[in-house]
Amino acid sequence: MTTSRNDAALIAVDWGTTNLRAYLLNAKGKILDHRSCPGGVMSVQDRNFEAPLLSVVGEWLAQAKLPLIAAGMIGSRQGWREAPYLPCPARIEVAAQQLTAVPFQDSQGQSHQLLIGAGVQCVDDSGLHDVMRGEETQLWGSDLSDGAVCILPGTHCKWAWMGKAGEIQKFRTYMTGELFALLTKHGILGRLMKPGQDDLAFKRGVLLGKNDSAHASHIIFSARTAGLMGTLAAESLSEYLSGILIGLEIGSSLKMTGALPEQIHLIGDDELCMRYAQALHAVDIQAVRSQSEATAGLWKLAQAAGCMKVSSP
Amino acid sequence: MTTSRNDAALIAVDWGTTNLRAYLLNAKGKILDHRSCPGGVMSVQDRNFEAPLLSVVGEWLAQAKLPLIAAGMIGSRQGWREAPYLPCPARIEVAAQQLTAVPFQDSQGQSHQLLIGAGVQCVDDSGLHDVMRGEETQLWGSDLSDGAVCILPGTHCKWAWMGKAGEIQKFRTYMTGELFALLTKHGILGRLMKPGQDDLAFKRGVLLGKNDSAHASHIIFSARTAGLMGTLAAESLSEYLSGILIGLEIGSSLKMTGALPEQIHLIGDDELCMRYAQALHAVDIQAVRSQSEATAGLWKLAQAAGCMKVSSP
Repeated sequence: MTTSRNDAALIAVDWGTTNLRAYLLNAKGKILDHRSCPGGVMSVQDRNFEAPLLSVVGEWLAQAKLPLIAAGMIGSRQGWREAPYLPCPARIEVAAQQLTAVPFQDSQGQSHQLLIGAGVQCVDDSGLHDVMRGEETQLWGSDLSDGAVCILPGTHCKWAWMGKAGEIQKFRTYMTGELFALLTKHGILGRLMKPGQDDLAFKRGVLLGKNDSAHASHIIFSARTAGLMGTLAAESLSEYLSGILIGLEIGSSLKMTGALPEQIHLIGDDELCMRYAQALHAVDIQAVRSQSEATAGLWKLAQAAGCMKVSSP
Repeated sequence: MTTSRNDAALIAVDWGTTNLRAYLLNAKGKILDHRSCPGGVMSVQDRNFEAPLLSVVGEWLAQAKLPLIAAGMIGSRQGWREAPYLPCPARIEVAAQQLTAVPFQDSQGQSHQLLIGAGVQCVDDSGLHDVMRGEETQLWGSDLSDGAVCILPGTHCKWAWMGKAGEIQKFRTYMTGELFALLTKHGILGRLMKPGQDDLAFKRGVLLGKNDSAHASHIIFSARTAGLMGTLAAESLSEYLSGILIGLEIGSSLKMTGALPEQIHLIGDDELCMRYAQALHAVDIQAVRSQSEATAGLWKLAQAAGCMKVSSP
């Protein structure tokens, strides 16, 4: 481990809302070491972003001066410095020319800079702005083929339509994860729910959401009436609601594009991707799990920016 | 006041989730006295529903044995006793035959009973159950003409299509009020919002919600991006979101029925009805404020049930 650390060429930082994950990479993108802490953007006190960053990367920086590159909510308005949003279609080569450098000092008073990657924006057919921050790096780090459609499930789930050579042609955000959490934790729907699994109820929700996507705030209420009327058990209601919300994404994307492809790629957390695969299966779409190492996109970005540390010969 | 109280013929109780309001009525439905307390269904301890009820009606009952009739969430599963749901089309004459009697004693040990009115249910074109409890009594207490369409704004907003002679033909629930509260109080959208009024942003939201009702969980996210991109001021975002959610109701109802009438009736809280009137105006529908005294429906229901106290000659 100590030997390989001498090859260190880059520190890649995945800095989101709740977590800060840092990776020590060699020039080929291999992970030599990694550290994390719960120092996400929302938990940082008095805008002291140095503190959580140094707590994870301080030891690495004490051994060698290394470039640091980051993506995620750290570049948002609530983050350390607001990094720009690149317009779609968006390519990694352009992002590499627009890194936002934030200078900081380590505990020895040495100067460093964190290079924050840009987010991506697009405007939909109704003139609405949409934004992503962090997901673009996952897309660029993946092995998606030209023309692929990819879903990145999460609090604010993203559907991305890829162009050629890793270009993000357009994308669309759905508030699925946040709506599910709000409705079940703070709302009246949660009161009738009991923990449980029910694949059929989930599928029923998916089909309903897809077919009746024009009636979202009405059909969501059926997760209450199905409980009141006993058409679904308390243990099935949460699965049903989850299905409805994912089905709404499918219905909306279908209405927007006229047709969905035979297969859709999934990037993200295993459990969430399983759930989306199940939903896609219910509407006869093949789900393909795409690889995207957390560090691959950041490493490619650093490489395109030419900011990797060059090892001494 | 004391004189008129001798005419008392009925105690009408509007017992909802957060409040308990009781009215002393004469045989003609005139309000002789009224009392209220925060003893809504959700605040009742250990299912001791007698306590808040007696705290407001105890003095009236001590003076005369009177029939008591109630509507609202007190008849729900979380209430005192679950009263049935009448199927649509639903008429007050049928409801009057299906009152649920809950016996209780006052502090002197005298026996009384609270007659709880039935709720109403219907099944939509997708086979989804829908329910109302309390709103049916407001509809029956109103002066709606045959064939009227009526909106009752609230946490779970109801759209009702009336048949002949006060018959509720069908209705539809939208979770507008709950979604607005959840998204702004507990969700990320609230973080960019500042208090303020903006009629134009509201109208923009209404039109977007109506036209893009197939994309609800996507367009709601635009209440964040509009703030991030500066296309709306922080003071306008809440109005914009409110517009979107009400617009979604209009879009959904329009898609369901094919056409909306030239005028729609509104029953409920002044401020909410003003907001809906503004939304309807934005889509060229005339809003008509319908009168519905809180007590009128309960009085009509008691009259149809023949349970009013008959005064001595």
